[in-house]
Amino acid sequence: MPIKDFYAIIPAGGAGTRLWPLSRSDEPKFLLDLSGAGQSLLQSTVDRLAPLTEGVVVVTGQNHLTATRAQLPQLPDSSFFAEPSPRNTMAAIGLAAAVLQQRHGDVVVGSFAADHIIHGDGAFANTVAQAVAAAEAGYLTTIGIAATSPSTGFGYIESGGPLGIEGAPTALHAVGFTEKPDSDTAAHYVNQGNYRWNAGMFVARTKVILDHLAKLHPELAAGLEEIAEAWDTDKRAEVMDRVWPGLEKIAIDHALAEPVAAIGGVAVVPGSFAWHDIGDFATLASLLPQIDETGNQTLGNGEVIRVDTGGTLVIPESGRIIALIGVDDVVVVDTKDALLITAKSRAQQVGKVVEAARNAGYDDVV
Amino acid sequence: MPIKDFYAIIPAGGAGTRLWPLSRSDEPKFLLDLSGAGQSLLQSTVDRLAPLTEGVVVVTGQNHLTATRAQLPQLPDSSFFAEPSPRNTMAAIGLAAAVLQQRHGDVVVGSFAADHIIHGDGAFANTVAQAVAAAEAGYLTTIGIAATSPSTGFGYIESGGPLGIEGAPTALHAVGFTEKPDSDTAAHYVNQGNYRWNAGMFVARTKVILDHLAKLHPELAAGLEEIAEAWDTDKRAEVMDRVWPGLEKIAIDHALAEPVAAIGGVAVVPGSFAWHDIGDFATLASLLPQIDETGNQTLGNGEVIRVDTGGTLVIPESGRIIALIGVDDVVVVDTKDALLITAKSRAQQVGKVVEAARNAGYDDVV
Repeated sequence: MPIKDFYAIIPAGGAGTRLWPLSRSDEPKFLLDLSGAGQSLLQSTVDRLAPLTEGVVVVTGQNHLTATRAQLPQLPDSSFFAEPSPRNTMAAIGLAAAVLQQRHGDVVVGSFAADHIIHGDGAFANTVAQAVAAAEAGYLTTIGIAATSPSTGFGYIESGGPLGIEGAPTALHAVGFTEKPDSDTAAHYVNQGNYRWNAGMFVARTKVILDHLAKLHPELAAGLEEIAEAWDTDKRAEVMDRVWPGLEKIAIDHALAEPVAAIGGVAVVPGSFAWHDIGDFATLASLLPQIDETGNQTLGNGEVIRVDTGGTLVIPESGRIIALIGVDDVVVVDTKDALLITAKSRAQQVGKVVEAARNAGYDDVV
Repeated sequence: MPIKDFYAIIPAGGAGTRLWPLSRSDEPKFLLDLSGAGQSLLQSTVDRLAPLTEGVVVVTGQNHLTATRAQLPQLPDSSFFAEPSPRNTMAAIGLAAAVLQQRHGDVVVGSFAADHIIHGDGAFANTVAQAVAAAEAGYLTTIGIAATSPSTGFGYIESGGPLGIEGAPTALHAVGFTEKPDSDTAAHYVNQGNYRWNAGMFVARTKVILDHLAKLHPELAAGLEEIAEAWDTDKRAEVMDRVWPGLEKIAIDHALAEPVAAIGGVAVVPGSFAWHDIGDFATLASLLPQIDETGNQTLGNGEVIRVDTGGTLVIPESGRIIALIGVDDVVVVDTKDALLITAKSRAQQVGKVVEAARNAGYDDVV
């Protein structure tokens, strides 16, 4: 059942260049079905949040608005927020928070990335309910993901003692946020036990967000406020055109989370659900089912013939028949205009290829 | 300059399944540019032989006639012989020999496969001229290719003493022919020095061919004779329909070369040119130039991006961009409807994949 006066904000951005040629600038990661669930990551995110909230809004680039709406026909027009240009997460989340406050008063909003994979809906709902309770108590509340490995790919949240908030029994004081650490530091974090991955989930009252922002970044706050007042009127286009391009580009972590944590205003609720951010094809492979005893995987329905081939992930997207002989532990992504073959162990380097393709003048395929 | 009364017969057949998906049933090996020469193996074969002969004829399957003619616009209609169904090399070469005898009398003909690569045109011309001289002296003459490795992929010709034929100073008595040997036997052959590869090149007077055939395979000889008499008349279609399907299916090696060698009627002229039969992608790779110091090769003009990748052969035929990261010693063949990725060391197994694709119902791509 929905949590009263709680709304979800879904920032849908990020190209996912390490997942090229599956993801690309005009078909980013959040629009893709990377879990084999039969729906995109964005659709799964909305389906996960809609039952918990009184409304879901999606903030995406103007260039992705059409595709995003097409995937979410159940949402009303008022749920879609188009950014004419990217201005980082503070502007995106702040815009949605300000507009939702205009519409509904001082409600609780939670931001959840459009391209994460979460398993364990009950545990997720419980965690979110606690985060909403902590938000209602005035905290900028984040959700800390159990660090299952010393990953250098995520930032970490350091927690302190329990806050004793009613309705949020596991909520802890958030001491601070870290950037992506080196591997020694990451190993130290995981051993400590009081560091959790920062998945960019923030839950807070709109007034808490906007008041902090007004103190910390007054020009950005004023700009967002002016846009929000015009948003549901016939002045939206004029005000957006004038104000949006000048907004400060800053991540919500730097704009709010770190300075507010420093003054004791941030809570962290430990997440007890499974969470994945598919950064590259090796991560994707680690999440997909194997189709035979030699560890091969196929994402999609194309015809793949394998002879003496193990540990491969093949993504047949072009409709062509694909045959592999004696090639182990590779990823093959076959799309209509581009083909990637990479050692699974080199999946992190796919971004280099996108850069090289762009430099070679192949803008239309990246 | 042309050799007087000498005609070339080019049997153009063989699917080349180990070169799939580059070669396929409707686009066999001989129609492809596998040397990067800018023309097909068939076109190179015709260009090599036309200057040496008074005429060139091509014998091919009915299903390849249109494509074959399209590649050879310089040849008259009378140069094309279409087989309604494959009946092996004796029928193909015998048909052409019988028709050429009808047209030109007892001339010398030489058969040369449409899909071999030869370098050293001067040496080739010299070898052929000697073979023609031996043929005029009444021998069924073959050309023996210097065995540069103990290959188990070819048959061998065993030579005896010199024949002392005027105009053919290097011609030797051919003692016998062998099937493809095992590797010990092949090593023995190469050490002996009097075994050469059998490239299926036979040069003889048409009357010598047809007289031997009349003794050894009288029904086949009679059938070919009947077809030849009708060939350049309005009865061709009727006679072909009636006679061709009943002709014995036998290779020229078994039908003529072996039994005639046994009675001392075969000569062998050692070839002093470079010769290659591209059986699979590993062989193809061994012949193509390398484009960088890590041994990569590209056949064709598509865009290929390589990162930390060596020893690869990429054949971009689909127009798509291809990116490889950290995959060494593989062959990638990218066509519009099929993609092959094979370890170079497994190139011999490509035929298996074609079989599997056919079994999976993908007849249209094999």
